[in-house]
Amino acid sequence: MIKAEIIAVGSELLSPFRIDTNSLYLTRSLEERGIRITAKSVVGDDLKQIAHAFSIAFDRSDVILCTGGLGPTVDDLTRDALAEYLGVPLILNESVLQKIERRFAERNIRMPEINRKQAMVPQGAIPLENHLGTAPGIFMETHGKQVFLLPGVPFEMEPMWEKYGLPLLRTGEPFQRQVFRIAMMPESKVDEMLQPVTQTLKETEYTILASPAEIEIHLLAPHHARAELMEASSNIRRILGNRIFAEELVKLEEVVARLLRGFNQTVSVAESCTGGLLGHRLTQIPGSSHYFERGVIVYSNASKNQLLQIPYELIEQHGAVSAPIAVTMAEQIRFLSRSDYGIGITGIAGPDGGTPQKPVGLVYVALADLHVTRVEKYHFPQDRERIKFMAPQDALNLLRLRLIE
Amino acid sequence: MIKAEIIAVGSELLSPFRIDTNSLYLTRSLEERGIRITAKSVVGDDLKQIAHAFSIAFDRSDVILCTGGLGPTVDDLTRDALAEYLGVPLILNESVLQKIERRFAERNIRMPEINRKQAMVPQGAIPLENHLGTAPGIFMETHGKQVFLLPGVPFEMEPMWEKYGLPLLRTGEPFQRQVFRIAMMPESKVDEMLQPVTQTLKETEYTILASPAEIEIHLLAPHHARAELMEASSNIRRILGNRIFAEELVKLEEVVARLLRGFNQTVSVAESCTGGLLGHRLTQIPGSSHYFERGVIVYSNASKNQLLQIPYELIEQHGAVSAPIAVTMAEQIRFLSRSDYGIGITGIAGPDGGTPQKPVGLVYVALADLHVTRVEKYHFPQDRERIKFMAPQDALNLLRLRLIE
Repeated sequence: MIKAEIIAVGSELLSPFRIDTNSLYLTRSLEERGIRITAKSVVGDDLKQIAHAFSIAFDRSDVILCTGGLGPTVDDLTRDALAEYLGVPLILNESVLQKIERRFAERNIRMPEINRKQAMVPQGAIPLENHLGTAPGIFMETHGKQVFLLPGVPFEMEPMWEKYGLPLLRTGEPFQRQVFRIAMMPESKVDEMLQPVTQTLKETEYTILASPAEIEIHLLAPHHARAELMEASSNIRRILGNRIFAEELVKLEEVVARLLRGFNQTVSVAESCTGGLLGHRLTQIPGSSHYFERGVIVYSNASKNQLLQIPYELIEQHGAVSAPIAVTMAEQIRFLSRSDYGIGITGIAGPDGGTPQKPVGLVYVALADLHVTRVEKYHFPQDRERIKFMAPQDALNLLRLRLIE
Repeated sequence: MIKAEIIAVGSELLSPFRIDTNSLYLTRSLEERGIRITAKSVVGDDLKQIAHAFSIAFDRSDVILCTGGLGPTVDDLTRDALAEYLGVPLILNESVLQKIERRFAERNIRMPEINRKQAMVPQGAIPLENHLGTAPGIFMETHGKQVFLLPGVPFEMEPMWEKYGLPLLRTGEPFQRQVFRIAMMPESKVDEMLQPVTQTLKETEYTILASPAEIEIHLLAPHHARAELMEASSNIRRILGNRIFAEELVKLEEVVARLLRGFNQTVSVAESCTGGLLGHRLTQIPGSSHYFERGVIVYSNASKNQLLQIPYELIEQHGAVSAPIAVTMAEQIRFLSRSDYGIGITGIAGPDGGTPQKPVGLVYVALADLHVTRVEKYHFPQDRERIKFMAPQDALNLLRLRLIE
């Protein structure tokens, strides 16, 4: 197995405010090429510490990826540290220098003297081009190890890695990944349902990731076990059926948006406890004006009456948080907006306002179309943010299921 | 200077999906006590690798904090790795064992045999109690170093650290921190305005952190330089004045909510391009029904006409994205909802729908009260998500400034 290690350089990554996230991107890129990350480390802008990190990495890993510390300032020491650790000199690379000078010239700026430093390359190393910044990367193959120095800015690092780093990487057997996304099911339930599939896997790695009201399943298999991956995938499709809302990393609202646009249909929403979050999610997708007509956030009873023409008597009779009110909200917003679908959400987000009969977390979600109105009653966990997130998630999922019926 | 190092143990932290965030919390806690983190590392659930991480840490740091790998499964190897590195045996701690057994007994479950492992403590170490899980922590002082083993679950780790870890920590001179939060100003502008203050700082560390439409300033000073910190703080207050919306880590909507409740006033909103996000943010705060009356998401012209009684002629005359429409939205929602304040937002979130006269990113934000309506015109950067975030941020800030006038 090829072992890789990531070193993130930068004192800000040792502060309480910033964290290295480049390594997630790189880990994913390497895993798909059959290389596993076996260690990660973070060190500050300190020559000795960076050189020490290189010595540890050369000791235990085959591939070393280092991000950050390639800028022009005195704090940028990654090049120097690598050269120092390897005992090789830094040599001015004329072609790199010209590229940096040209970058400045294009903006009608004279290159500051300090930027010369970025053209210094450890003897024996190959510079990697940077189309989006001045800091070139560096590749070096030495002592049987592959070393990549990359910029710390993700926006510069990622394209450089894709274009110039990856082609140089000695890869293992490539891996193939399959993703499934599922809404509104608990992790334990999904895990249990999939056990007949996942417990027989031999070479395919199964990961289940839970975030609120959303489960993500990853299967990862080496190329030679593709058949196993494909069989497992089709079994998962059979077991979970339309509970799977996507097989790629898209959000639920994006799937709903595609379906609505595909059918040339529209939706409007009437929200109470969710305060506009459903409208916000539906309008996060470019082109949302094609399918989203309007929304009302009817927090007070007066607003339910005036914006949706819901009689005060009906509210008094059932209470604002009730199935009949959710149904009427959905039907009225659909009717008044002349949309194909209407959604109504009413509930108690807390922390106050709950009663024994109607506790915090009680939410009704209704979906109306021309023919029928469905309403679901939920008792979500008693956490305001989560209640606000889960109710729109449920509404989107109901709409999705209705659209694919 | 006391040097500290954090080791995060767990194979999931080497996957493309999970990242160590415990270290941010610990870094902050240590910094306030005069201890700086000089390195961080992540290793998988592998005895040799964890032991190797300890050997590196003992080599270069005075305080070693290690999170994760304290559970009962075969994958939980942190205790074993520390004992192996130090060459000491693991000894069953009867008192810890009793506590774990009691935890299970309280839930009427017999303790599984594997959990005995969690009562094993390296010779010479002190167990740290865990009120929220079975995994006790471990403290050890050896070779002049302080070592803390803590659980990986933040929910268990943080209280254990506060209650049992911190009191054992040999601290340096404590630090004092001052925070300022500022909305709707560019980082470079804030930084420039503060230069007269920040450039004369001798012992106080100044950090400026930018996130979309929000700037955070941190001053950190050792106890003996408190006077400098306090002087710098009062100078910053003088320079930035009411642009500072908070001196603690609260969100802008929370500040607005406090002000509205303090004055016993209400707000209603009419949103177009922001699709409900302003309503969502205003209703994120517990008790929002005290100050939030209603919202309308008037995406279509028909909805602007029907929900806000805006004449079609006015929309045709000026266009839906215009100052007069934003003003009318704010005034009408205020009037119809009988709220003290009305907010109107209209703009072009893109990526489509822009014209040379009205490009993507053009947004009008209006705030109406009984006496006056103000409208601001913005040209936000052309990124849908950012436009959607910045317009509500601006609206909240306008309302805040009006409330403190």
